[in-house]
Amino acid sequence: MKNLLLIAHGSRRDASNDEVRALTQLLAQCAEDRYDRVDCGFLELAEPSIPDGIQQCIDAGATEIVILPYFLSAGRHVAEDIPNAVKIKQDEYPHISIHIANYLGQAEEIPDLLFRIAKSSGS
Amino acid sequence: MKNLLLIAHGSRRDASNDEVRALTQLLAQCAEDRYDRVDCGFLELAEPSIPDGIQQCIDAGATEIVILPYFLSAGRHVAEDIPNAVKIKQDEYPHISIHIANYLGQAEEIPDLLFRIAKSSGS
Repeated sequence: MKNLLLIAHGSRRDASNDEVRALTQLLAQCAEDRYDRVDCGFLELAEPSIPDGIQQCIDAGATEIVILPYFLSAGRHVAEDIPNAVKIKQDEYPHISIHIANYLGQAEEIPDLLFRIAKSSGS
Repeated sequence: MKNLLLIAHGSRRDASNDEVRALTQLLAQCAEDRYDRVDCGFLELAEPSIPDGIQQCIDAGATEIVILPYFLSAGRHVAEDIPNAVKIKQDEYPHISIHIANYLGQAEEIPDLLFRIAKSSGS
């Protein structure tokens, strides 16, 4: 069973965390045969934490978990904090494939997407 | 003369700010006839500030400036801080079109992009 786990920073604003949860629901709805489940986790300030999010996937039967950092830049969070949090569960469940994908900001489609947004926003 | 101004949060880490500057250069290189210039500005912690970034566009001859918030969620920064900073220059230069585009996280392409990243990152 294959699980996608979207990881956001987490915010003091509930609305920002809810925006991540809504995106997660949208991903789950259109995952089709790519993933059996899509969940989210937060680095800080919101629940579930990254280890708790991974545990929820495992409790639901995941045998393969792809962690996707919903971050725009490769700061300390992407380079250290997320891998460190993931490693807790990788060490605890060595027989489960837990893999960290590239972070969003690294996607080569970003420039074209930015031009599209700028254009469609009325200019 | 039409200018795209990418607005990022700004970081204490120079590398994160440089990542935004590199993206800005990339945008400038592939802007073709869409924009005459592409610049960046930062909400805080890095230079130029949003008003200074807008002023640089105006000093370079911009008659139309599209401000693109490089943000993933509609927090206070997107809802209030960026519009407030932009308004300083809108009030100062009422004859120049200064328009705020949607923020990146609002783009409808994001779910497909996330699936693509997850897949191409080895799983």
